[in-house]
Amino acid sequence: MESDFEVSLVSPRNYFLFTPLLPGLTTGTLNDRTIVTSIRHLIKKVKPQISYYEASCTSIDPEAQQVECQDISGIQGSVSKFKLPYDYLVMAVGSQPATFGTPGVRQYAHFLKTVEDAQAIRSKIIDCFESANIPGQPDSEKKRLLSFVVVGGGPTGCEFAGELHDLIEKDVRKYYAHLLPYVSVHLVQSQDKVLNTFDKKISEFVEKKFSRDHITLHTDSRVKEVKPNELVVYEKKNGSDITLPFGLCVWSTGIEPIPLVKQVRDSLKDKGQTNTRALVVDDNLQVKGAKNIFAIGDCSTIERKHLKEHLGEMFQQADVDGNGELSWKEFHHFLDTVSKKYPQLEVYNGRVLEIFKEMDVDKSGSLSHEEFKHLLEKADSEVTVLPSTAQVASQQGQYLATLLNTLAKDPKADISATPFRYHHRGSFASIGGSEAVGEVPGMLEGGGFQVWLMWRGIYLSKQFSITNKVLLSFDWVRTTLFGRDVSRF
Amino acid sequence: MESDFEVSLVSPRNYFLFTPLLPGLTTGTLNDRTIVTSIRHLIKKVKPQISYYEASCTSIDPEAQQVECQDISGIQGSVSKFKLPYDYLVMAVGSQPATFGTPGVRQYAHFLKTVEDAQAIRSKIIDCFESANIPGQPDSEKKRLLSFVVVGGGPTGCEFAGELHDLIEKDVRKYYAHLLPYVSVHLVQSQDKVLNTFDKKISEFVEKKFSRDHITLHTDSRVKEVKPNELVVYEKKNGSDITLPFGLCVWSTGIEPIPLVKQVRDSLKDKGQTNTRALVVDDNLQVKGAKNIFAIGDCSTIERKHLKEHLGEMFQQADVDGNGELSWKEFHHFLDTVSKKYPQLEVYNGRVLEIFKEMDVDKSGSLSHEEFKHLLEKADSEVTVLPSTAQVASQQGQYLATLLNTLAKDPKADISATPFRYHHRGSFASIGGSEAVGEVPGMLEGGGFQVWLMWRGIYLSKQFSITNKVLLSFDWVRTTLFGRDVSRF
Repeated sequence: MESDFEVSLVSPRNYFLFTPLLPGLTTGTLNDRTIVTSIRHLIKKVKPQISYYEASCTSIDPEAQQVECQDISGIQGSVSKFKLPYDYLVMAVGSQPATFGTPGVRQYAHFLKTVEDAQAIRSKIIDCFESANIPGQPDSEKKRLLSFVVVGGGPTGCEFAGELHDLIEKDVRKYYAHLLPYVSVHLVQSQDKVLNTFDKKISEFVEKKFSRDHITLHTDSRVKEVKPNELVVYEKKNGSDITLPFGLCVWSTGIEPIPLVKQVRDSLKDKGQTNTRALVVDDNLQVKGAKNIFAIGDCSTIERKHLKEHLGEMFQQADVDGNGELSWKEFHHFLDTVSKKYPQLEVYNGRVLEIFKEMDVDKSGSLSHEEFKHLLEKADSEVTVLPSTAQVASQQGQYLATLLNTLAKDPKADISATPFRYHHRGSFASIGGSEAVGEVPGMLEGGGFQVWLMWRGIYLSKQFSITNKVLLSFDWVRTTLFGRDVSRF
Repeated sequence: MESDFEVSLVSPRNYFLFTPLLPGLTTGTLNDRTIVTSIRHLIKKVKPQISYYEASCTSIDPEAQQVECQDISGIQGSVSKFKLPYDYLVMAVGSQPATFGTPGVRQYAHFLKTVEDAQAIRSKIIDCFESANIPGQPDSEKKRLLSFVVVGGGPTGCEFAGELHDLIEKDVRKYYAHLLPYVSVHLVQSQDKVLNTFDKKISEFVEKKFSRDHITLHTDSRVKEVKPNELVVYEKKNGSDITLPFGLCVWSTGIEPIPLVKQVRDSLKDKGQTNTRALVVDDNLQVKGAKNIFAIGDCSTIERKHLKEHLGEMFQQADVDGNGELSWKEFHHFLDTVSKKYPQLEVYNGRVLEIFKEMDVDKSGSLSHEEFKHLLEKADSEVTVLPSTAQVASQQGQYLATLLNTLAKDPKADISATPFRYHHRGSFASIGGSEAVGEVPGMLEGGGFQVWLMWRGIYLSKQFSITNKVLLSFDWVRTTLFGRDVSRF
């Protein structure tokens, strides 16, 4: 088969990591190899052959359409730098944990973003127990060593807290029963509830569960500093600081761009790259201000067209009979035809009549120019940034594959008519004790054992390779039957 | 149950490592967790309860009967040092890899003694392939990067070479086929054959297999220096040096005492601790010159009584009728009764008549004083140091358990009548391609697929816990079905 493409893949990490299951590595519920798939394995079956290079991209030259790469691993040959020219460049470089300038985070806390992070946390948790077990350790120090603090109440933080709870309940109880009275788990969240991207009902479910599990929640609390053995936390409610001693602190509060993204962004600053959180891409995921560069996943953010700016032309387009008002029929037709171009309006497609009635404040049976303006404002305000999830990145990858195939057949194809659309399939978070919370639009919103079974089923089905599916199933059975291994290395 | 003992266990490594299977970790045939068992798990079922402390013993005070320990891990409490008094001390501290003063070994080669070593080697092997794959890498450099050199032709070195061969044949062929022509494996051995503790037939079997597998053997070759990318090797046959470029060098040539053992040895130097390789222990595994200290495994070596020194008393004892000669009956009776005390003589037990005839040079039908002296000299010369294997350590552990129970019942019991006896059950080494070599006294001596099956069966049965048995079986199936994961972290 003659191929349209010659694909080169550059990544300093020679494997794909199934990040959503990373918290399971921190306690040994899962084995590290279970949730990684080597790139070599992934590309083996792809035709045409993909060339993979284990290297880090050090810079991008959008003018010359060329990237510079470097082998940054321990073993290097006499040639460790190379350049790759490109026709199209896809940046899918991810992100790194954000510290928001908080002092001490990098020195004294642990991130939970990579396999190495999870391995280190697993070893350190047990280290805390073994150090508390040293003869003559004062009770106060035992309490400090066995105080586990999680900063960040997002899915990763909550799942880690849940894993920790399981480890304590099942394995610590078995091996370190005499130390159980000294154990405490804290979760520090800057907002007023955990899992704030989920529905309030779900947050409450999690908070109740954590309360039963003796996981102390510190909401509305901002970490001011991480010291070697304690956190300084500002409690908004009281307007004062408290200190939280810890044996281990896991930091999982958000993400920021990696240096390469900052570099590209800075070089395109005068071309509209002004977002500090990620590269701004258009509806086709093209990096704004650059030619033939696409960006997907955590490193990118889609710039929505502000509908209000297009008010004039849109109203004109909608007002077919030109009477200065939009009848129900005109409005319906308009949404049907135009929402493909403006994904923000798509959400109203299923409830056109409802929104028409809502906007028709004066109940005139038609929308005035002013009423239509309010609709666009409403749509603009409702659009939020896409979450930094595997689900978004995965859909973007699939979208881009189709788009690039279109461009390969016709480089001048009008791609603006087919913007990227995110379809939220749902979110899950496992929270320990064979319970999970989840929300699937129009289907499910809640938590419990059944949701946990769904969570397992879905994540099992999401594994790329048969090997990973077998390993994951095996790990779940192994942990259930034999518990977690507390060996640390 | 009232117990005779209060047992404290001190080890900086909180798990037991099944060292004989360590080479399988270097390529991913086995998973790291498969061959470790946490000490917490091992002691859980033991009554009376054992107190385990994750710490390193920093010094031993034989006078005060006390050890000093220190928590040397990353996380420490305010108390990290402690002292433990003892009635009996058992040193089972193992050994560390020896470099024999060869420059560059620690900097540029990898040992294969710990889980961390094996993990590093696994990652580096793949790193070599990925670095050879960098665009523009010259052919000479590809050859250098993909030259894997093993120093040491003992079981570990041979098994690692075999593992490497399997990885190359099965997984490299699948993922890095274009790099296969550049791959080479070298094994450097200072002696004239590999596996020199095995029978010559077995060494030859292995050498033939390695030759078929394109593993280049450098026997009678001594490494003079390890440089960043090459070895300087002295070839005894030619009396000259060659250089061996490498991408990865694994050093597995032998062992030396850890610092604590050196310290104890030096403090007892004037009490007979003169062996530089290990602590000298008597037939009851008691450390020579110290009171109530036992040593087992790699850190100890048994000092055999030189029989010749006891010639007078032994002859007197044997010569029941006092006629100055040993009749066949007297000799037979003597060996029967006395060999318990002198394990060196035990080897003759099964062939008393044979040895009697051999020693009776003048065919007088009895042994003269001179002939008896020759027998003792022969026995003295035949005794060699016990190998540094798990098998020896395990038997010593079992022996010591019985001995300590005896002493607990009667501290003045005559333990000299029950010296430690090593029963060699056999040795195996897996050499790649589903083949192994093995020798079991009186049963087996050879190699091949059937021996490999035996090897697997025996090592499976030797696993301490059900968990390890399940994990080991699973890993073997996994590797057969899915191959090895080449992800590296």
